[in-house]
Amino acid sequence: MTVTAPAGFESAGIAAGIKRSGALDLALVVNRGPSQQAAAVFTSNRAKANPIIWSQQVIVDGRVSAIVLNSGGANCFTGPEGFQVTHRTAEAAASALGVSSADVLVCSTGLIGDQLDGEVLEEGVLSAATRLTTAGGDDAARAIMTTDTRPKTVVIEGDGWRVGGMAKGAGMLAPGLATMLVVLTTDADLPAEVLDRALRAATRVTFDRLDSDGCMSTNDQVTLLASGAAGIAPPLDVFTEALTAACRDLALQLQADAEGASHDIAIEVRGAVTDDDAVEVGRSVARNSLFKAAIFGNDPNWGRVLAAIGTTQAPFDPYLVDVSMNGVRVCHAGRPDAPRELVDLTPRATHVLIELHAGEASATIFTNDLTHDYVHENSAYAS
Amino acid sequence: MTVTAPAGFESAGIAAGIKRSGALDLALVVNRGPSQQAAAVFTSNRAKANPIIWSQQVIVDGRVSAIVLNSGGANCFTGPEGFQVTHRTAEAAASALGVSSADVLVCSTGLIGDQLDGEVLEEGVLSAATRLTTAGGDDAARAIMTTDTRPKTVVIEGDGWRVGGMAKGAGMLAPGLATMLVVLTTDADLPAEVLDRALRAATRVTFDRLDSDGCMSTNDQVTLLASGAAGIAPPLDVFTEALTAACRDLALQLQADAEGASHDIAIEVRGAVTDDDAVEVGRSVARNSLFKAAIFGNDPNWGRVLAAIGTTQAPFDPYLVDVSMNGVRVCHAGRPDAPRELVDLTPRATHVLIELHAGEASATIFTNDLTHDYVHENSAYAS
Repeated sequence: MTVTAPAGFESAGIAAGIKRSGALDLALVVNRGPSQQAAAVFTSNRAKANPIIWSQQVIVDGRVSAIVLNSGGANCFTGPEGFQVTHRTAEAAASALGVSSADVLVCSTGLIGDQLDGEVLEEGVLSAATRLTTAGGDDAARAIMTTDTRPKTVVIEGDGWRVGGMAKGAGMLAPGLATMLVVLTTDADLPAEVLDRALRAATRVTFDRLDSDGCMSTNDQVTLLASGAAGIAPPLDVFTEALTAACRDLALQLQADAEGASHDIAIEVRGAVTDDDAVEVGRSVARNSLFKAAIFGNDPNWGRVLAAIGTTQAPFDPYLVDVSMNGVRVCHAGRPDAPRELVDLTPRATHVLIELHAGEASATIFTNDLTHDYVHENSAYAS
Repeated sequence: MTVTAPAGFESAGIAAGIKRSGALDLALVVNRGPSQQAAAVFTSNRAKANPIIWSQQVIVDGRVSAIVLNSGGANCFTGPEGFQVTHRTAEAAASALGVSSADVLVCSTGLIGDQLDGEVLEEGVLSAATRLTTAGGDDAARAIMTTDTRPKTVVIEGDGWRVGGMAKGAGMLAPGLATMLVVLTTDADLPAEVLDRALRAATRVTFDRLDSDGCMSTNDQVTLLASGAAGIAPPLDVFTEALTAACRDLALQLQADAEGASHDIAIEVRGAVTDDDAVEVGRSVARNSLFKAAIFGNDPNWGRVLAAIGTTQAPFDPYLVDVSMNGVRVCHAGRPDAPRELVDLTPRATHVLIELHAGEASATIFTNDLTHDYVHENSAYAS
């Protein structure tokens, strides 16, 4: 029960032969309507993969019939040939489903710079189209995995309507967005412009606050498809709340499966002047290799927190800052407070609270520690 | 032959008892004149250690008689008590040398948040002052080491004058400046405002382009002391060139000794519109954990280079970019070029050339790879 949990959606996940391992590597999600409205947000990396370039054109009119996702290759920096592969993938889906290729989104994930085989993709799409079912969501969620150790899915129940979702991503997780592909579905009956507002509001406080390793992907895409099959149009705030819950759930699943991580770290910043300041402060800590290595070593090294936040432009006085780790305030007003020995960092879930005492705004950034396994996995990825 | 190579300087390095290991931990460098002009640049981190706060006041009038440096504790986020320790250290040197404490710089390095013992510092300074010699530069260079595996020194010969220097730093190496203390000396006879111009010009293209791990320290300071003992006033450009050579030599020694590193990576960016653009592009790669882990694994993963530079604001077209690694062009115009198998990344010295084809400016950023040893050293530092 994932992207096929809401009414109106069918899906399939197959082994198309893109991955040499023979694992599932191609997913197809189809919106059977009656409505086919959609919204999407994309990586802000200027180095965009071919499927991103394609999909940014498809989404313009707010109408999407289907989305094809493949693992086993990012189709990024593969030149005009690579763009032809994306186009051919969309055409194959359009042909099999009897829709326009201009209404077919494409997502790819895997190694940058490797050419995908267009024939393999085309045959895979045609095969997947013959296996579409309303129970196909779980296979689809498995087919988009790369270094993920488990599929990531979610279902949120509305009042007579649902939001379903799936996500992949295990590294290169950073803002705007993370290295991830996400497909969200709903049977609520909402127009594209409402879906777009809800999706941007939801991603801003969820996926955009996930920063596993500071590395921004070339292939990120979060797509929301609405079938209208429930025949209900919930109010924007109610729908946004459900969608945000779905996004937060998936974001935390991504964090929990980050490559090589041994701690899931929530960096909560309070007392900032603005939300953006709170995010900047939290992110500076989330991206500090020395802090992340210390957490791996169960070392509550609050000095590295202060050294990190001192590099930001956010207004606050470093000598008024309090820092707590897992409930123990180790730094008060920029000076040592409780003995660091009192902090227990052995649990995977880690909470760092930074109180700036400069204003009323707050934000939480979700990150991971820097571990031997992270170095190992990312030094061996291409081999 | 280091900071005491130019005429007019005496130095000592002793074990004052700050480090529990009994290793050398306190250095004193004295300018015997006839001139006592000086310049200094400091960390741009807003979280500044107490010795930085002190030294920024001392340098204002451009006159410095002596500098005290200790390892074994950063004296950062130690409150008013910590500032008192810095003040007491300067007073001790002033008293022993018969100068004003307002002409004594102080530098500290080590763990953030630990209080230093003022009495130990004071006794150490008084002891060091009795051991000053013109051969004391090597001991001084050893006394400022923390996780450094070797002392870092330099001497550059001018026409009748010299520049000498010492540096410490092995991690937290990032721009503006790095986690490092540097003392440069010269017997050239130049006023403080000329020293300041030369020092800023030299650090901008050397230490500021060293970015080992993206982590900016709270204690960085680069100091230049001029004794005038050579009785020669070289032209600004000649002096700046010698000073830049000294800074570059020390910066490369810092890079070569970076914590846990197995590769010294020079990221050369050509064809940028401005120098600042070239620096931004180079730095985005230097700070990309996935790229750094790939280099550790001898994997010429050029896709991660393009994904990194795509996050910058520098003007260029990602699909015109060429990337070469150790002389092999693996990416041409944003597409795969020579097979990555041709790249030999086994040497420690690694050259990544990024040609943007957007303008005429260039810059080289010096960084290191992300290794198991880096994670280990920085997860265990405080324990």
